[in-house]
Amino acid sequence: MVFKTDIQIAREADKKPIQEIGAKLGISSENLVPYGHDKAKVSQSFINSVQDRKDGKLILVTAINPTPAGEGKTTTTVGLGDGLNRIGKNAAICIREASLGPNFGMKGGAAGGGYAQIIPMEDMNLHFTGDFHAITSAHNLLSAMIDNHIYWGNDLEIDTRRVVWRRVVDMNDRALRQITASLGGVSNGFPREAGFDITVASEVMAILCLAKNLEDLQERLGAMIVAYRRDRTPVYCRDIKADGAMTVLLKDAMQPNLVQTLENNPAFVHGGPFANIAHGCNSVIATTTALKLADYVVTEAGFGADLGAEKFLNIKCRKAGLSPSVVVVVATVRAMKMNGGVAKADLGVEDVQAVQNGCANLGRHVENLKSFGVPVIVAINHFVTDTEAEVQAIKDYVAAQGAEAILSRHWELGSEGSADLATRVAEIADSDEANFAPIYPDAMPLFEKVKVVAQKIYRADAVLADQKILNQLKDWEDQGYGHLPVCMAKTQYSFSTDPELRGAPTGFNVPVREVRLSAGAGFIVVICGEIMTMPGLPRVPSAENIKLNADGDIEGLF
Amino acid sequence: MVFKTDIQIAREADKKPIQEIGAKLGISSENLVPYGHDKAKVSQSFINSVQDRKDGKLILVTAINPTPAGEGKTTTTVGLGDGLNRIGKNAAICIREASLGPNFGMKGGAAGGGYAQIIPMEDMNLHFTGDFHAITSAHNLLSAMIDNHIYWGNDLEIDTRRVVWRRVVDMNDRALRQITASLGGVSNGFPREAGFDITVASEVMAILCLAKNLEDLQERLGAMIVAYRRDRTPVYCRDIKADGAMTVLLKDAMQPNLVQTLENNPAFVHGGPFANIAHGCNSVIATTTALKLADYVVTEAGFGADLGAEKFLNIKCRKAGLSPSVVVVVATVRAMKMNGGVAKADLGVEDVQAVQNGCANLGRHVENLKSFGVPVIVAINHFVTDTEAEVQAIKDYVAAQGAEAILSRHWELGSEGSADLATRVAEIADSDEANFAPIYPDAMPLFEKVKVVAQKIYRADAVLADQKILNQLKDWEDQGYGHLPVCMAKTQYSFSTDPELRGAPTGFNVPVREVRLSAGAGFIVVICGEIMTMPGLPRVPSAENIKLNADGDIEGLF
Repeated sequence: MVFKTDIQIAREADKKPIQEIGAKLGISSENLVPYGHDKAKVSQSFINSVQDRKDGKLILVTAINPTPAGEGKTTTTVGLGDGLNRIGKNAAICIREASLGPNFGMKGGAAGGGYAQIIPMEDMNLHFTGDFHAITSAHNLLSAMIDNHIYWGNDLEIDTRRVVWRRVVDMNDRALRQITASLGGVSNGFPREAGFDITVASEVMAILCLAKNLEDLQERLGAMIVAYRRDRTPVYCRDIKADGAMTVLLKDAMQPNLVQTLENNPAFVHGGPFANIAHGCNSVIATTTALKLADYVVTEAGFGADLGAEKFLNIKCRKAGLSPSVVVVVATVRAMKMNGGVAKADLGVEDVQAVQNGCANLGRHVENLKSFGVPVIVAINHFVTDTEAEVQAIKDYVAAQGAEAILSRHWELGSEGSADLATRVAEIADSDEANFAPIYPDAMPLFEKVKVVAQKIYRADAVLADQKILNQLKDWEDQGYGHLPVCMAKTQYSFSTDPELRGAPTGFNVPVREVRLSAGAGFIVVICGEIMTMPGLPRVPSAENIKLNADGDIEGLF
Repeated sequence: MVFKTDIQIAREADKKPIQEIGAKLGISSENLVPYGHDKAKVSQSFINSVQDRKDGKLILVTAINPTPAGEGKTTTTVGLGDGLNRIGKNAAICIREASLGPNFGMKGGAAGGGYAQIIPMEDMNLHFTGDFHAITSAHNLLSAMIDNHIYWGNDLEIDTRRVVWRRVVDMNDRALRQITASLGGVSNGFPREAGFDITVASEVMAILCLAKNLEDLQERLGAMIVAYRRDRTPVYCRDIKADGAMTVLLKDAMQPNLVQTLENNPAFVHGGPFANIAHGCNSVIATTTALKLADYVVTEAGFGADLGAEKFLNIKCRKAGLSPSVVVVVATVRAMKMNGGVAKADLGVEDVQAVQNGCANLGRHVENLKSFGVPVIVAINHFVTDTEAEVQAIKDYVAAQGAEAILSRHWELGSEGSADLATRVAEIADSDEANFAPIYPDAMPLFEKVKVVAQKIYRADAVLADQKILNQLKDWEDQGYGHLPVCMAKTQYSFSTDPELRGAPTGFNVPVREVRLSAGAGFIVVICGEIMTMPGLPRVPSAENIKLNADGDIEGLF
């Protein structure tokens, strides 16, 4: 069998004008701010006008721990959204925007795959509607204003060794990770160590994704800590007086982007915070707006459920007052086999036993998600090589757990293949069974929150942290940050902090290496491993092969 | 009398949907790529489809040397465009885009002023259609790929001390002027000195503004010199294999932006190269497209005529095969007075003698411009404080020179005030009197070209240059760059290199401090003074007062 590539399918799509897509959600064309004919932002004034409406049902799509086999979480999110529309429901999709820079290292990717994709794929991998450029500008304006403040006399008494606000660029550029800035003599300022992160790692990105509206955005930007004085007291963004201008730079970016699936159903693609040093979900404003406009909103969280769904539920839902009606856990036969010990090269061979062995990983995620009080269903994202016996093995395992697994063939068939899944998901959502609550209260001490996540979700024996880290958490509690949730940063490949430990490991500890306060975003980042905030390019970057061909089509990006 | 501010007038404008503006030029809405409701790009396919049409008449607006009194060159460009439409002509305007970063230092500005403006003003001072962000990305992709090439083994044998390709950011950030990059150990690369310029100073910007189409764009990008080897042989962008991906990043930015005047006439706002280290005109593709769609195209060049018009005529027109039908030189009574020795504080007092004395500056520009074989007319941009006698003094001076000066009151009255000017300009353009030619041929040696400009335009006695510079020019001639035009970089405030020398100075020399090859843009930059490629922020940056007010309007940007 020969399959079309994602980009071939995407280019053949019967794309509708974005105004037609908006109309499906009751958005008139005056309330859509178009960016080309197939992308638009939903105007702030329209968003304000629908705030009194009733919310639709929120459906979270998450997954097992990612494996090199691929799980298809976004593909399933899109397939489920199309499936719901197919069975006559008014449904919208909410996913994250892609970062520009990394596409020039490794190839860019579709939003979804096969016949379950969001388009226009090229634009979404390039400048899209300029949101990330706006974030880059706002971030770097603050950076320039900090150094400018120091240059003109440093009235705020910033300790130039303790400027924690770096610069950002949406490019994989390892040469900028660590630099010495302000060289060249008197007119260029006071030399100091500095550096750049990739734009998605910016706290401004996390804030844009958590802010309820423009006022909240500005408030949070102002609350960001940018430096410390010699006495260790913090200097805030609002002390630099950058928060107003940053808000002006971000006002368009705050409006959610509307695009469409291959089947012309509405999809919001907005925000893209790093899933490790931030919470890794699409924007609150896109999700809350979608909930006002659609009866069902399908969204996803980054990485596996231990990391992405945990932060979606404990951070995004808590902060935004969201309450999911059902959680869909995506699994595949191939990924179960890898969790069961099969090497990638051997995934094509039927191996029911390996599938059964690997299901322990899925089972633990299902169990964890239930602990948030939300009904859970498993979606088996079908690969054409899967055998019936293998699929049945997953279904049996999940049934034995008291849950349900449904095969979905959206990749191959579009909504025709996901109608069954959509039907069950809608039934569960409509049953109002959900009784969602985060798994720790605001009032719990910070280190206790870490322990709850590590022990209840990861199933670690203990959390290990130096006295220095414990003292730091205590200091923040004393400064009034004790109510914040914790934003865990650990490997996505395992429940543990060892990426090699697949399945459902036990008998391990979680060491905390570092903690960081994101005072504007409103969480404490708890780092349990290496964190790379500026990627590098590979030996042969994909950029070398990216070009326009004679027809004006982009080659080499996918 | 109380006058409204530019932003008040702009916000009160009766703005039309951009599709209506496009229709005036025969562009259907499918061929407009909208960015919001009041901005659009003209699609590349439409541009390709009109290449066989006859060109309209090109009208260049330039000015005397700028003074703190203000001349209103853009205001006159807009007023003339509106005036031509008022008298029943099909006319379009072409101007440059504004840079984002500097607005956060000093206040941003209108495109034009009073009742002769282009809107939407807020967007044009912020992200607009993202062109400059695209240029920043393309530029920095190349930067990252250069350091990445060095990191992975440096097969091209780049001398890391001689990487001439810097990075850019569209922000006034003096701390980035000079940095040490790639610090932090083995994984971050090989430490070297580096730095950032502001985006408008990028050679990519100059190329975008000179490229005829996407193929030409990629060709020119590939030809840029990014570094030298130890043996001084150049390393090109195409050696790094970045030109294809850069072209992909720039493909949307290459499409000209269409907006409107307060009177709903079409205006192309596209490209914004630095007027000193580049040629300082809007894009060739916007100008050539406008000429296919309108009978009259009014455009402007940066700074005074000695710098901006000289480069427009010798570089842009030469490269793009453009031929202006008439040149309009903007002068004001106030600026004539300043050239005549009056201090800014005293400009409100009638002083006919000072006006007469200052006219020498205007007179020399008129004479210079005639030497290009193009008819010249003077537009007196009226200020409400001008007296009749002062205006008459300019008219008389110009008449004595065998030319004509027309009073234009577009700032106060819009097209009603510029109809006379428009009528005469159209008559001259229609007379086909022009017989344009650049003032030096391609084949002239490089240093001779510099001498021609310095002696014929500036009226310098001699050009002074070290043997080192002469040798450098000779080397480039040997390498095949001898046919390039020279891009002069000197103060805009005087014909000489001394900004204090107003009027029409004589008896001075022009010292050349440095020469640079912009092999992709296709010119030799000849630097006759300080050049600042990265501005800094002032003690109190305007950003501190920029914010959204309760109505969602931007405050403090203007």
